[in-house]
Amino acid sequence: MSKLLEFWFDLGSPAAYLAWKRLPKVLAQTGASVAYKPMLLGAVFKAQGNASPVTIPAKGKWLLGDLARYARRDGVPLAYPPGFPINTLALMRCAIGLQMRNPVRFVPYVDAMYDALYGEARDLRDEKVLAAALAAAGFDPAEMIALASDAEVKQALIRNTEEAVSRGVFGAPVFFVGEEMFWGQDRMDFVAEALTA
Amino acid sequence: MSKLLEFWFDLGSPAAYLAWKRLPKVLAQTGASVAYKPMLLGAVFKAQGNASPVTIPAKGKWLLGDLARYARRDGVPLAYPPGFPINTLALMRCAIGLQMRNPVRFVPYVDAMYDALYGEARDLRDEKVLAAALAAAGFDPAEMIALASDAEVKQALIRNTEEAVSRGVFGAPVFFVGEEMFWGQDRMDFVAEALTA
Repeated sequence: MSKLLEFWFDLGSPAAYLAWKRLPKVLAQTGASVAYKPMLLGAVFKAQGNASPVTIPAKGKWLLGDLARYARRDGVPLAYPPGFPINTLALMRCAIGLQMRNPVRFVPYVDAMYDALYGEARDLRDEKVLAAALAAAGFDPAEMIALASDAEVKQALIRNTEEAVSRGVFGAPVFFVGEEMFWGQDRMDFVAEALTA
Repeated sequence: MSKLLEFWFDLGSPAAYLAWKRLPKVLAQTGASVAYKPMLLGAVFKAQGNASPVTIPAKGKWLLGDLARYARRDGVPLAYPPGFPINTLALMRCAIGLQMRNPVRFVPYVDAMYDALYGEARDLRDEKVLAAALAAAGFDPAEMIALASDAEVKQALIRNTEEAVSRGVFGAPVFFVGEEMFWGQDRMDFVAEALTA
């Protein structure tokens, strides 16, 4: 029987971007189904007493080189948008809003935003840049602004983030296979093993 | 030509223990030579503004499971001594002291201490337990106490630790191939690639 993989992510995490890019291979290889779980990583950090690794200068410096090695190995472009790490609140509200209101458009949206951020290093803090990136992927920027302002959508993102914290998530990306938790794009080999065990 | 791998470690790190166990395979596979670099991880953490991952409860909980997965994959026993994480100052002074005064006994000492700590979960804080572990590995406990009290030995450990900090080390284990740094037992595949590139 096909197992379920939960993928917890924030568009603000370049490690989650690398995982997002490799995820289709893991799903194809294992026959697993997937539940995408948008969360707010900043709120998760705060609740768990954790912080972005870039807050420790030596670790941040190492991390850039480390992620670059993974990107090269996977054949994936990796750049950083101006102002990185960026505030992803509106972007993540749109992600979960699409899951609720137009689920078939969820994956294309996440694809487009991850590519804009870490493939092309676009400054999505700039409304015009964001609108262009949305339009290029077939989204109506005005509709997306409305989605990000929807009270039910806001609540759903809060609920997901609270669930993440209560289940022990402290970073991104995180995978669950049942209640076994795996943190990091560098643990996807263990994830694949758990999905085929 | 054979490349040089620097292995920076502290006996207090179970991740460094797992790396120590896998290191002979990487050296055999790549033909690299190795320079063992004892350091004091607690002092490195402090200097870099970092802390043990176990200080973040959710991360510490995840880490135990994560290291257990690596240990299972590598076929290595993994347990934790009472009082973990422990103060390794005297143990690390003995390590670097042997490098200076009796280098042929360095690897057997580190083997014995890692096995006692994480293979057998012995309480090396207890002088009698420590003396027994040393004696079982062919070391004279009184000589080791003298070694740990030697001013030149103490200075050498401080110098190594300062060098680690100045080169960007913020955790353990750390590997250098030239000036390329790799952090974690989970990066040994990249280390092996760098050694054969």
